[in-house]
Amino acid sequence: MSQSNVIIVGAGLAGSLLAIYLAKRGIAVDVYEARGDMRLEEVAAGRSINLALSDRGIAALREVGMDEYMLAEAVPMYGRMIHTVSGETKLLPYSGRSGEYINSVSRAGLNIALINEADKYSEVTFHFNERCVDFDCESGEAEFLGGAKVTGNTLIATDGAGSAVRNAMQHGGVDRFDFSQTWLEHGYKELHIPAAGNGTFLIEKNALHIWPRHKFMMIALPNFDGSFTCTLFLAHKAEPPASAGGPAATYAETSTPPANAGGSAFETLRGHAAVREFFNREFPDAVELMPTLVEDFFANPTGNLGTVKCFPWNAGGKALLLGDSAHAVVPFYGQGMNCAFEDVRVLVQLIDKHRVGPAVTSEVLSNLGWANIFEEYGSLRKMNTDAIADMAEENFYEMRDRVADPVFQRKRELETRLEQAYPDYFSKYSMVTFREDMPYLEAKRLGNAQDILLMEICRDHVTVDDIDTDWVIGQLRKLTIGGEYYE
Amino acid sequence: MSQSNVIIVGAGLAGSLLAIYLAKRGIAVDVYEARGDMRLEEVAAGRSINLALSDRGIAALREVGMDEYMLAEAVPMYGRMIHTVSGETKLLPYSGRSGEYINSVSRAGLNIALINEADKYSEVTFHFNERCVDFDCESGEAEFLGGAKVTGNTLIATDGAGSAVRNAMQHGGVDRFDFSQTWLEHGYKELHIPAAGNGTFLIEKNALHIWPRHKFMMIALPNFDGSFTCTLFLAHKAEPPASAGGPAATYAETSTPPANAGGSAFETLRGHAAVREFFNREFPDAVELMPTLVEDFFANPTGNLGTVKCFPWNAGGKALLLGDSAHAVVPFYGQGMNCAFEDVRVLVQLIDKHRVGPAVTSEVLSNLGWANIFEEYGSLRKMNTDAIADMAEENFYEMRDRVADPVFQRKRELETRLEQAYPDYFSKYSMVTFREDMPYLEAKRLGNAQDILLMEICRDHVTVDDIDTDWVIGQLRKLTIGGEYYE
Repeated sequence: MSQSNVIIVGAGLAGSLLAIYLAKRGIAVDVYEARGDMRLEEVAAGRSINLALSDRGIAALREVGMDEYMLAEAVPMYGRMIHTVSGETKLLPYSGRSGEYINSVSRAGLNIALINEADKYSEVTFHFNERCVDFDCESGEAEFLGGAKVTGNTLIATDGAGSAVRNAMQHGGVDRFDFSQTWLEHGYKELHIPAAGNGTFLIEKNALHIWPRHKFMMIALPNFDGSFTCTLFLAHKAEPPASAGGPAATYAETSTPPANAGGSAFETLRGHAAVREFFNREFPDAVELMPTLVEDFFANPTGNLGTVKCFPWNAGGKALLLGDSAHAVVPFYGQGMNCAFEDVRVLVQLIDKHRVGPAVTSEVLSNLGWANIFEEYGSLRKMNTDAIADMAEENFYEMRDRVADPVFQRKRELETRLEQAYPDYFSKYSMVTFREDMPYLEAKRLGNAQDILLMEICRDHVTVDDIDTDWVIGQLRKLTIGGEYYE
Repeated sequence: MSQSNVIIVGAGLAGSLLAIYLAKRGIAVDVYEARGDMRLEEVAAGRSINLALSDRGIAALREVGMDEYMLAEAVPMYGRMIHTVSGETKLLPYSGRSGEYINSVSRAGLNIALINEADKYSEVTFHFNERCVDFDCESGEAEFLGGAKVTGNTLIATDGAGSAVRNAMQHGGVDRFDFSQTWLEHGYKELHIPAAGNGTFLIEKNALHIWPRHKFMMIALPNFDGSFTCTLFLAHKAEPPASAGGPAATYAETSTPPANAGGSAFETLRGHAAVREFFNREFPDAVELMPTLVEDFFANPTGNLGTVKCFPWNAGGKALLLGDSAHAVVPFYGQGMNCAFEDVRVLVQLIDKHRVGPAVTSEVLSNLGWANIFEEYGSLRKMNTDAIADMAEENFYEMRDRVADPVFQRKRELETRLEQAYPDYFSKYSMVTFREDMPYLEAKRLGNAQDILLMEICRDHVTVDDIDTDWVIGQLRKLTIGGEYYE
């Protein structure tokens, strides 16, 4: 059993960034990571998976001086490029203002950069190939595969959606631990559009491409090397036809209608011909650009999409869940990483607030009152991570269905014009994505109120040109009069 | 490793009743129970915990000829007896019709009667002191404490809210297993009103007594021996005063208001004097009847109140969750046991429907198609157990707060008159409690629509005498015109 100050379980994006934040404050950190050192391992070709880095994440990187470095290797995406079945495209900008865009970054590249940065601090020690398998919420002792045990001053679990620390909290470690894990009917499969021969991009570089098809969709994000990583989101199962026989005897219960009766699904795409036929029918303009489509389809796993919520996040002052371990979200708002980075930023603000003096020695550290910090963190943060989790699920339906709807497209066009003309107007997407000063819950509440109003207006007008934007902004501003608005 | 037909994990109320149902169909059953044989163990004095048996449960008992036997030892409860702080009482009948009441029964007495009945069948074998600790969803093998392993034709888990079989399904056994467990802020404590010296009842025998106090409440159910089992429902924790310091630095998140600021809570009732003062102030008419109040308060544990939801309930044809293991509910609708008994009834109806012939030999049994039966059971039943889980949580607030509200009391009085005058009218409570032919979800939907209408009417009238019930029933009947009503 060793002794250290703060133990971080998981050297992923959140854990590595947290290590830097703590080290900058003189706090000694031991980071235990289940996998090997990713700096020593080759990233499989064609699997350079990317993420959308936006303002909340950038703000957190900025505080440790990592923002410009990361953005230098990012590909800006200025809007959603919608692809119809017949191959027409239309760009829906993310914002009407310049400077408001999202950035496609390599997950592995960002993670390696964070580990390298953390490694510069003498306060940080990485322990790779150490898988945490259990945690004692009374003693604070973490157990690793093979039997090694470690106790720190406290432990912060950034070990992801399947967190072993959270499992220990759920199964007896924390009284009345609320927990939920829910799964979408849809899974995902990663596919690939290679770079052109000369290293340029085969389709528009600076956009997030979407092929919306109502019951399913494909997206593509640009990589720095000119390629795109595509993701197909599709139901796992084709729903069976509506149950033939009613219930037995006297007890007349009724079935729900099938969500995907007769539709395409991963389970029905079983052979090469079926896959090719499906893509030729649904994504003909993309198929031409995907020479390894069928090979990729069968080589890459089909992933699941889940949401995890739980509370409380802390076991007294012994442990805190942070990032995906506390609140895994589906990827449809591009906020999983950004939210986890914001977690780090909020937590460390609270550590700074509770700290006795500017210098943190181990004596001061033990007086930090981790339990108080963790309790305050949870009470401030939970409602906001719930809000982004809900918005991320809702955005799946927006991306899959609504971006193809003319009324919705008019509404996005109107929002773009409003953002161009009125500096105080931000769409819900903009508040979530570009307003790191605004909590997710406020973005959700105000954004929903705006959306209801704007959709009504756009239903009543055939073109945006007919809409009096001065009148619209007046209506929108009324939503926020007096502070306690938009409920 | 032994081989059997159907393995039931848990000899509680649901498991024992299921064993009888299956045995009557010639299906061999092995029932594994973690605890000892309760028929051989003495029930602790004063801990004769009771449950409200109502029509859904009675209907399930009737199919195995156990209904009259059980009702002979039950105490009918015709309504809620409301106790004010000053000791006034008022009876709110459960129904305007005679014959519609609920029955206080002893949990242990009912369970023992079911085990005795099941034991009469040669098809049933009980294995006591066998705690199931794990389940292999691939092979269907159940593991017990000590290492014994058993595989049957299939397994049905009636092992309660903390089900080991469900844990195995959640943690890797079943893909995309949706799971949630949520806890009320309130806990409970069982207390006792003894019988009068001559074995009669110290307060009204034929009622469920409620002392509603907004943030908390006490209830009492009669026992056959003249005593009452009381239950205090109270917040675990007194909420701290609103957080003083706002969040740090730039990130302005806001706190939720405290749910129970400064109120009474289990954590503040620490000494004899505090308990006595609390009861004297809040329940003075009951305190006189509770000679062992303080001793009971500190001897009995403080329980938690949780809701468990999950899906799917089956691991292919290898296992099915039934009763609390699939859907634990809070006790405020008195439906936990009744719902589990209805589970048994619905499941066995489906077994009968899918069965090839009238006689079930083990050859026929292996062709039963457990996976199909379990899938159909889940698709029919899930929406109804979700409905009762939600209604049970809502009824906590009704019992604690609304039964003391004059408008609500007028509404209950109006409902009673409607039930007396119009045979086709049933309140939501009556539909849930007395209409075993109506699925929970229908009761919830129609009941909510009725409640909105009746509360509006009762807000507008100072006494029920001023209300034209013929007009009201006309309005209510419109809610159900045309079948696809009450959404």
